[in-house]
Formats: sequence, structure tokens, C-alpha cells
Amino acid sequence: MGTRLGKHTVRLDSKPVIQSWAAIVGAKEGHGPLGSYFDEIIEDEYFGEETFEKGESKFLRETFGKILSKGEVSTGDIQYIFAGDLLNQCIAASFGIRETEIPFYGLYGACSTMAESLSLGSFMVEGGFAERAVCITSSHFCSAEKQFRYPLEFGNQRTPTSQWTVTGSGGVMVGKAGDGPRVTHVTTGKIVDMGITDANDMGTAMAPAACDTITAHFRETNLPLNYYDLIVTGDLGWHGKNICLQLLEENGISVRGFYEDCGVMIYDQQIQKTDCGGSGCACSATVLGGYLLDKLSKRELNKILFVATGALHSPLSLQQGESIPAIAHAVSIEMI
Amino acid sequence: MGTRLGKHTVRLDSKPVIQSWAAIVGAKEGHGPLGSYFDEIIEDEYFGEETFEKGESKFLRETFGKILSKGEVSTGDIQYIFAGDLLNQCIAASFGIRETEIPFYGLYGACSTMAESLSLGSFMVEGGFAERAVCITSSHFCSAEKQFRYPLEFGNQRTPTSQWTVTGSGGVMVGKAGDGPRVTHVTTGKIVDMGITDANDMGTAMAPAACDTITAHFRETNLPLNYYDLIVTGDLGWHGKNICLQLLEENGISVRGFYEDCGVMIYDQQIQKTDCGGSGCACSATVLGGYLLDKLSKRELNKILFVATGALHSPLSLQQGESIPAIAHAVSIEMI
Repeated sequence: MGTRLGKHTVRLDSKPVIQSWAAIVGAKEGHGPLGSYFDEIIEDEYFGEETFEKGESKFLRETFGKILSKGEVSTGDIQYIFAGDLLNQCIAASFGIRETEIPFYGLYGACSTMAESLSLGSFMVEGGFAERAVCITSSHFCSAEKQFRYPLEFGNQRTPTSQWTVTGSGGVMVGKAGDGPRVTHVTTGKIVDMGITDANDMGTAMAPAACDTITAHFRETNLPLNYYDLIVTGDLGWHGKNICLQLLEENGISVRGFYEDCGVMIYDQQIQKTDCGGSGCACSATVLGGYLLDKLSKRELNKILFVATGALHSPLSLQQGESIPAIAHAVSIEMI
Repeated sequence: MGTRLGKHTVRLDSKPVIQSWAAIVGAKEGHGPLGSYFDEIIEDEYFGEETFEKGESKFLRETFGKILSKGEVSTGDIQYIFAGDLLNQCIAASFGIRETEIPFYGLYGACSTMAESLSLGSFMVEGGFAERAVCITSSHFCSAEKQFRYPLEFGNQRTPTSQWTVTGSGGVMVGKAGDGPRVTHVTTGKIVDMGITDANDMGTAMAPAACDTITAHFRETNLPLNYYDLIVTGDLGWHGKNICLQLLEENGISVRGFYEDCGVMIYDQQIQKTDCGGSGCACSATVLGGYLLDKLSKRELNKILFVATGALHSPLSLQQGESIPAIAHAVSIEMI
């Protein structure tokens, strides 16, 4: 099953179906331009828990429950969960799904996790190994700032290229049958490292990876550049989006007019003061599980290329003088 | 295309072949009982690098190179790398394979990573999505102590149930054809959390997960309990191994005489003063990529059930009063 089209891309001939999806977000995301598309908006950043990390796990746990209830299935109907997050040792995911009793593969793809999990879940369905898989991720502004940058209490100044980690969780259930949007191609990214070392400029670090994967996708599929209604990257933000557009044009790929970035879409840059826009695993995941799949299911969009991007560094690797390796995975999602 | 035998287990009907394997270890592992089975023993714990973390990445990078050279393939022959490690944000893996230009899926399964990567690599081959995948992981005593417990300079006392993180990297290349050992079943674990909170007693935390996965494997495959020459868990250590044996017997599964644990095998407990034995992603990975696959290829072993175990907590989750969720994935490897 599946037809390999090139080094990065496999066409999924059975076209696994995204049977249900959900997104639960925090207050800032809920008050942003996409607010009406999310399943729930949680004003309390602790989500009733004692710590930010436990709160983040709860976002993931509740989103998982929502995916199942919207898909009208129970845990016994799911063969695999593919999940990961940004926290050290990916505790948001493992504590979030701890009680489900479902076979689980933990992932670390930084902010590319939503595309990584959807790719692997779709492969499991296409290969006939699973009837259904849940692919899910989360991030949290407070837990991420604390872990990757400074404690919130410190009140550090934000640089113009910094981005705002999305608080929330998004995910999907992919399966064999149904009427939903379908996964038609998976283009798996390789690590691209252009030597960027500024931890406050993830967009610049990740844009070359996004460009590499999008270029590979069109080269290997031979699809026309205007095939998709929307090509949407994960969390490059305003600055990274512009770099990505420029790099794509250098590769002869002009997608202006039908290219957007979840990090740009999720906040109102002027009013919400999020500098370059959203980031974090939940950025692309909530825009997918909220806005994009909603638009697809209503046929207001018919074909999208979803390209989540991740920066595979750590605070320690930066302290040790390393640059920021980045990766992007692309998934074609189409109404058929 | 795989036959689902139950909730956890898929039989891989094409029986993907482990085409090559390698293990590079540090001094302590090289001086242990399995020393002669490893491809290289590196006396310098920095491996010529400036930091332990960069040293760990080099272990992984060199092991990756060794897998390719032993398999007589080049990077262009590999469709996917599945890799992960214990470091925050899995930097050993991403920096270790940064230059390969191979499509990459990052994993976080703690010390279960070798079985997780081998499972997913085998699924990709069985599903027809890849000709070959490399499945690899690493760990390092010095980087792990520093991150999970205390700086080495502090010289903390070790508790009797503590284990010694294996320094090294092990991995395999799994592909469609060849004469090597074959992957016949994958049993994917679910999270099991028995409420253990002692970070110096990982064996007790992980044994119930190992028992759960082994029990599911026999229940779902209907194989006789003596089907395997060896059932080998990842890094339960002496204490965890005994608990696992006991728990299995409570489930009516008596495997005494053909059950071993990589954490017990890799060090001489008395002479090497490693308390309960080895641990870390590289524990099961180097015993697999060194000893086990060597024994299989020489037909000194014919059928093994490889069960790597992971503890999915973090220092932060423990500080926040959480117990330790654990997981175990099992892979059947057989000479046919």
C-alpha cells in the first residue's frame, strides 16, 4: 500500500480519513481571529490544576476526549495514539493520555509534532495496521516560557522576532472509512540547519526546512503549484513566513495568494501584541483541529498542504554554542 | 500487510529483515561481560568532543555510520530514520543525524526507544512505505546523571536500587530482503502507572509495564510460553527483573530459565559496582545491536522477544508529586 513518489513523499492510495478533530485553547487564542472555530476556550491558564504542566496535560487529555466524543467512538476503538509535546521528556503527552489504556508511541518533533503524528497515524491506517489512530499534541505559553526562556515573574523584554507559544491542544482521529477530509500524501522532512543561533528567532531557523519540504513535495508529486487552495506552515510567524516565501521563490515556487502560516493566523498581531505571531506544537495543531478541518469539511477549502515546522534544539544545545536544526513534515489533506 | 492479532499485537507477514546492526559503547560497558560483542569501545567519555552531550551525539552518529557500512549501503538507500534519546528535546538524536539528509521521525519513549523505533521502522517496511529504515538510540551516563539526578562533581551517594545509565549507542537497519534475523511481531505497549514515585528505583516502576506487554503478547499471539529461546527486557535491572518474573507468574506466565534483562547482562554487578545494573536507552539498544543480533545471526539464539521498557516521567513531574508512568514495547525477532 502507498506509492513512493520520491525521497520524501509517499502517496497514500487508500486515502485515510480524518474522522474527527478537536482543539481546545487558552484565553489569548480564544480571543484571537480564529476564536469561534475552537471547541472550547479555557480562561484559566492552570485549567483548574496546580501547575502549568499539569494544566497542559489537561488540555491534551480533554482534547483527546473531545476527539473521541465527536467521532462517536470509545477508547477501545482506537489502536494507537501518536503524541508528543515540547516539555522535557514529553510529560504533557504521557500524563495526558496515561489513563487511556491505548497502545502509545511517544514522539518528539518539537512544533512539527502535529504533522509527524498525523503522518505516522496515516501510515498505520494505510498499512492496514490500525482501524483508527489518534494524533495529538499540546503546548502552553507558561510552561514553555519557563522551560525554554525565563520564568514569567522575571518579566523579560521580548524581541521583535519572538513568537508567542500557543496554549492549547489540537488533534485528530484518522481511520479507514468515512466522509471526512482525507490524507493523500505524506512528505517527510529531513533536518535542515542553516546555522541560525538566535533562540528568539525560530521563524528564521525553521523557514529553510519548510521551504525544503514544500519544494520536495511539488518536485516529487509533480502537482501544479496551484493544486492546493491553501499551503499552510506551522509556526513560522510573520518574519519566518516572509523568509519562506522568498526561499520558495528562489526555488521557482511561487505560492503567494494561497500560502499562509498558522502562527500568523492565530493571533491579531497588532491588538494582541504577540510580536511575530504564534508558535508551539499547539499552534499548527489547534489551527488544524479548529479552523482548517472545519473549513475542509464545509468544502470552503478543498485541498490543503499542512506543513508543521519544528526547531530541534534545546536550551542546553544553545548554551553549548550549537545552531538550531529544523525540520518540517507535510501532509496533503483533501476533500474527495 | 500485517495481521492484527489483538489489541496490542500485529503479526508482520512479510517479516522485515534486520539487515545490519551496530553498537558502540563507553569504557565501563566495554569492560563488562558483553565487551567482546560491541563494535567499538570508546575509553574517552567525551568521545573527543567538548561536552558530554556532544559526546553522546557522536556515539549515535558513529553508530549510524557503522550500521550503514556494515550493511554496505549509503545514506541514499535509507528512506527513514527513527531515533530518540533521553536528553531534553532529544538533542543527542537530532544533532547526531543532522548531516544525513535522510527523512527523520523523532521519538520519545525514554528507555523503550529501541523497541519503539524498531517497531515503527518495521511497520514502514511491512507497509511497503520504505525499502530500509534505520532505528537507533543513545544514552550517556554523564549527560543523564547531570540532567536527571545530580552533577557528577556533587558525588551523591547511590541507593541500592539505583541503576547505571549505559554510555553508548545501538541501532539496526531494517529492510525488505536479506538473510538476517526477521521481525515477526510487534506488541505495542500502553502506559502503566502503579504509583511508584522513587526516581532511584526505575525497575519497580517499569516492571508492571513489561509484565503487561509480555502478557498481552502471549495472550494475543497464542504462542506457547517456551516459544522463544530468550525473552529479554530492556533495563529493569536486578530488582525490576525479579519483580517482573513475579508479576508474570501471577499472570500464569512462567518464563524462568529463558528470561533475561539487558540491564542485568551488560555489567558485572559485583565487580563493576553498578548496584541494580544498567539503564538508559542505550542499555537495550547496545545489547541488541551488540550481543543479541550477533547470537541470532550465528543461530546460537533462534527466537527472541525483545521488550524495551521506558519510564515516561521527568525531574519536574517528580518534583510536582507525580508518580512514574511506564511503557514497554515488544518485538519478536526470529531466524527463519
